[in-house]
Amino acid sequence: MSKPVLIVGGGPAGLAASHALASVGQPSILVEKEDCLGGAPILSGYAKLVPSGEWAKDAIGGMVDRVMQSEHVEVITEAKVTSFDGEPGHFKAGLSNGTSVDVRSAILCTGFTHFDSHNKPEWGFGTYPDVVTTAQVEQMISSGNGVRCPSDGRKPERVAILLCVGSRDRQIGREWCSKICCTVSANIAMEIREEIPDCHVYIYYMDIRTFGLYETKYYWRSQEEFKVKYIKARIAEVTSDGKRLIVKGEDTLVKRPITIPFDMVVHAIGMDPNVDNPDIASVFGVDLETNGYLDHASSYSGTGLTKRPGVFVAGSAIGPETIDDSIAQGKAAAMAALEQRHLHLLAAELVG
Amino acid sequence: MSKPVLIVGGGPAGLAASHALASVGQPSILVEKEDCLGGAPILSGYAKLVPSGEWAKDAIGGMVDRVMQSEHVEVITEAKVTSFDGEPGHFKAGLSNGTSVDVRSAILCTGFTHFDSHNKPEWGFGTYPDVVTTAQVEQMISSGNGVRCPSDGRKPERVAILLCVGSRDRQIGREWCSKICCTVSANIAMEIREEIPDCHVYIYYMDIRTFGLYETKYYWRSQEEFKVKYIKARIAEVTSDGKRLIVKGEDTLVKRPITIPFDMVVHAIGMDPNVDNPDIASVFGVDLETNGYLDHASSYSGTGLTKRPGVFVAGSAIGPETIDDSIAQGKAAAMAALEQRHLHLLAAELVG
Repeated sequence: MSKPVLIVGGGPAGLAASHALASVGQPSILVEKEDCLGGAPILSGYAKLVPSGEWAKDAIGGMVDRVMQSEHVEVITEAKVTSFDGEPGHFKAGLSNGTSVDVRSAILCTGFTHFDSHNKPEWGFGTYPDVVTTAQVEQMISSGNGVRCPSDGRKPERVAILLCVGSRDRQIGREWCSKICCTVSANIAMEIREEIPDCHVYIYYMDIRTFGLYETKYYWRSQEEFKVKYIKARIAEVTSDGKRLIVKGEDTLVKRPITIPFDMVVHAIGMDPNVDNPDIASVFGVDLETNGYLDHASSYSGTGLTKRPGVFVAGSAIGPETIDDSIAQGKAAAMAALEQRHLHLLAAELVG
Repeated sequence: MSKPVLIVGGGPAGLAASHALASVGQPSILVEKEDCLGGAPILSGYAKLVPSGEWAKDAIGGMVDRVMQSEHVEVITEAKVTSFDGEPGHFKAGLSNGTSVDVRSAILCTGFTHFDSHNKPEWGFGTYPDVVTTAQVEQMISSGNGVRCPSDGRKPERVAILLCVGSRDRQIGREWCSKICCTVSANIAMEIREEIPDCHVYIYYMDIRTFGLYETKYYWRSQEEFKVKYIKARIAEVTSDGKRLIVKGEDTLVKRPITIPFDMVVHAIGMDPNVDNPDIASVFGVDLETNGYLDHASSYSGTGLTKRPGVFVAGSAIGPETIDDSIAQGKAAAMAALEQRHLHLLAAELVG
């Protein structure tokens, strides 16, 4: 039997990579630090995903089931890789549970960490209970209980979604764009309008980045079919008048100060580099790029390559990424790992 | 020997797919309608690519060489697929050169068509020789002759790049965003500033969509290191005063009309669906989505699947796409084709 490929991280990219390898008979060992697979969409309780519209628990849950049931995938949860030594084709990975595994290569699908809105205190998170994050709204929707103000459980009549919380913000050391928050926010806005038709939903933005075909499906549909309002603005602070939240800032198109009351304010939180990235880079002998994501070869001829031969990367470990591109990258990295196996088999034939 | 996979289109996605299959010993037949491989980056003479910074002729040219030299890839140029009959594992593809090939599956990597700026006549293309497209500027840069005004060969002192030409424009039936033009334009602006340091370069935009890590590498770098100016504007028309081009419109941030002279105006042209898509959809029995791109399964569990089993899609055939994501999708589709082969081998074993 062929020596397994080590896959680190059980989110969309890792699930796609292990399934792809399994489906051509290549065994893999999938190591996940949490106690279950699925990554952010499952662990954070996402609702309907962009762009497929599938519920996370069905779509990503289905990918989890497929991997759990595969005879070619060994799943190890609640473990981290603590050492990784050897050469392509012959690595030994030490795990935090005290065991070790022999593998031919590794694919790092270690994902991202949600921005912690406490790090943007002037926008009210942690101070006012009705200031929540997109992840929390996803959980409200996926729970089936609907979107309600945490303070008293009432249906909000006015919701503001603030984009770029923890993204495009030099003041807090996060210059990157998190790529998918605009589209996710448009999706959430439509979900809220669908559940609570009387609720007014506003999205405050710097630039709307519903790229590609998302433009029609999210940006225009949310405005025309769901009457979501988009306001280009610079938000200064979120306060309270004792009854409602107050969003203060400047409408940058009409150049006027705004002071607008809302029942709920939603932070569209960005994708930070995984907080474990320094450790991961150290263990696997790969680099971090300037923002703290895992570095990869910037070359079209080598997708998912790192500076260490036999170690590949995919998904939001290397930068803010959508779920579908994470899945494509996971499969591409699986393909790269197969290529490497094939080269070794050819070499073995030549030697033999 | 295993029956080959048919790959239609020799751009980045098709090159990635055929190389990936070749590197695990799976033969493929790559059919390209033009007389050489490489797709848009080669056929349109792109310069340095986003985001790797490699020259197109090196990066994509290298991918072409790799495929041309592979013993596992049969390349057929100047041919289209005119019929495609059979079942997964056993298809027969008729070609426009009168031959036919037996294949097990097909991956459609048929790409896009550049927007024709003649369809936006009020912006001066076709009327004034110094109104050019991003593709033409790429050619000027890659030729080594530098960016010059076509009318008289002079170095431009003032260049305007107009974003969203053939994108986000309902009036001309193109509502989608072409995803990569913002970043490509920032890249071109920096190239111009590097070659002609005295030249002033302005980018007129609706929203800047330098998503993910492009934000730092392109948007901020172009402003801070290269002094490119970004102006949010609604452009009405491009005319001439007899000496210079005049860009007229409204600065949407200060709400004032603008009438500004330039030596050169660059249309950042969008990505139309491939003009051949209706034929391709008909031949392969797949659907077109509402904008005219090839439709694919909107499901996370099946990347690159179409409604017809055994026919896969990747890259800008399915919507505006970056080169690196096209490559990842090409490899993911290759993986899907391998999965399908594996299932057939397993089935054959069971029957046997």
